[in-house]
Amino acid sequence: MGRVLVVAATHGNERNGGWLLEGWRQDPDSLRRAGLALELTIGNPAAWAECRRYIDRDLNRSFDPTLLADPARLEREVLRARELVELYGPEGRSPCPVALDLHSTTAAMGNSLVVYGRRSTDLALAAGLQQQLGLPIYLHEGDPAQTGYLAERWPCGLVIEVGPVPQGVLTAPLARQTQLALEAALEQLALARSGRQSQPRSLVVHRHLGSLDLPRDAAGNPAALVHPRRQHRDWQPLRPGDPLFLCRSGETLSYEPPEALGEHPVWPVFINEAAYGEKGIALGLTRREIWPVEPDWAKDLQALCASLEAD
Amino acid sequence: MGRVLVVAATHGNERNGGWLLEGWRQDPDSLRRAGLALELTIGNPAAWAECRRYIDRDLNRSFDPTLLADPARLEREVLRARELVELYGPEGRSPCPVALDLHSTTAAMGNSLVVYGRRSTDLALAAGLQQQLGLPIYLHEGDPAQTGYLAERWPCGLVIEVGPVPQGVLTAPLARQTQLALEAALEQLALARSGRQSQPRSLVVHRHLGSLDLPRDAAGNPAALVHPRRQHRDWQPLRPGDPLFLCRSGETLSYEPPEALGEHPVWPVFINEAAYGEKGIALGLTRREIWPVEPDWAKDLQALCASLEAD
Repeated sequence: MGRVLVVAATHGNERNGGWLLEGWRQDPDSLRRAGLALELTIGNPAAWAECRRYIDRDLNRSFDPTLLADPARLEREVLRARELVELYGPEGRSPCPVALDLHSTTAAMGNSLVVYGRRSTDLALAAGLQQQLGLPIYLHEGDPAQTGYLAERWPCGLVIEVGPVPQGVLTAPLARQTQLALEAALEQLALARSGRQSQPRSLVVHRHLGSLDLPRDAAGNPAALVHPRRQHRDWQPLRPGDPLFLCRSGETLSYEPPEALGEHPVWPVFINEAAYGEKGIALGLTRREIWPVEPDWAKDLQALCASLEAD
Repeated sequence: MGRVLVVAATHGNERNGGWLLEGWRQDPDSLRRAGLALELTIGNPAAWAECRRYIDRDLNRSFDPTLLADPARLEREVLRARELVELYGPEGRSPCPVALDLHSTTAAMGNSLVVYGRRSTDLALAAGLQQQLGLPIYLHEGDPAQTGYLAERWPCGLVIEVGPVPQGVLTAPLARQTQLALEAALEQLALARSGRQSQPRSLVVHRHLGSLDLPRDAAGNPAALVHPRRQHRDWQPLRPGDPLFLCRSGETLSYEPPEALGEHPVWPVFINEAAYGEKGIALGLTRREIWPVEPDWAKDLQALCASLEAD
């Protein structure tokens, strides 16, 4: 048997999820749990207490199996990642087959999902959620510079990503959107558990292609910023020639596609996310694709959810 | 003789001012200096490097004379405050009679000024700027819980405060607004230096009355958030009975004026500023007042600016 793991404040300065979670602990009835037993946890309590993204390293890049297995790695977030796996991993003390990780962003992502790779269980859950709420899906894969996400370490897991909201700021609409997406996810899991989850015929995904940094000067400082006509336009197509950056001089730099991408439009995500500056990411580039939903996805999710405990 | 001190990144996660300042150092002609010699400095270089508001304590609450004089106080920001006074204070190595401190906020303050107390020089500069650009003025005074601002330690000094922008995020419009306000301030100082500054007949100030925290539960966690109908409505009157907070339960809490304030409207500022959560401030309360401009203000500013060096 197992529970659904709900993690908030994996990044300690993303306040809305953590604030919600404290409320659900005080009053479990304030969350529509869809009849499922949950484990609620603050991902990074030390960073949460200091309202910082992390203390030593990004917890949400600390779940790489090689890193977790390296006894020489003792950063606070590596210790916490090991602890979360020991407590709530599929073979943990309170085993959780599914992890739902609540995040927020300064980018105008709206209410959205992030899925890592192409696991059938994740895709079945995301497809059900997209059918229910229309949420856009960012499919992150194949980026060796960005690995070790929490959700990847559970047999089924995804991120609920809501924005825009500044780091450190609680807002009622952000909290409400987060709660709605989580409740819908729990509803989908409960339906899968009972074999009654319906799937759409197709799934719209925004598949990760790569990322772009701001243009930088010789000293490494940004020489240009995201163009005002691109700011807050996540999920909207960017075509060759569209304004992308604005230089200190006032000159506009247009989008010139990297050769590998050709003249097709791309769909930017996480435009000007505060925490990605240090990672050298001004925006992620995706391609919008429509995938047929495979019948095996729902079967796999149903099999996994069969072990979920009732509340 | 003296220079105008321009400080950016007094808070290390307010990126736009610091980014501008790096550009002005590389290309001084990119700032219209109005013919005045400047000192440009990053307020808190250690916090700037880490993209944090501060390391040990808020630098912009570290200029209290008693604190600066206490040899037992060795926090990093206290050391930096002493250093800034030694370098650029009115008796410093490069004496600066005037300090302009560039800040940003997650609140929707627009392009605005913060003035500390009622010094004639500050009021003359603010009045000239309000006449030139129409900027609203937050007059901060008489709050024993909030003291030790940088601008107070210089004979004339004010804050240029621009928002909303998340901490850690650069945006072109924010940077542009900051630069415009600074250029206008330098223009006003140059006019005062040559005795040609004109003053409006009256000055609109938003005078600090106090602040309100979020309602909190027994554990100290927020029990309610800023009401969506109040979020981003800085500088707009709040009347008794207006929605102010939204509880976890969905219940709206209306504004009930503290007894001392009576049934008059108040004008909130810094609504939901990220950094004020730890200070227990959800919003500042001000009263909007129209003050006659005193002839002595301009005279005092002119006398002070007479010592400013040409560029």
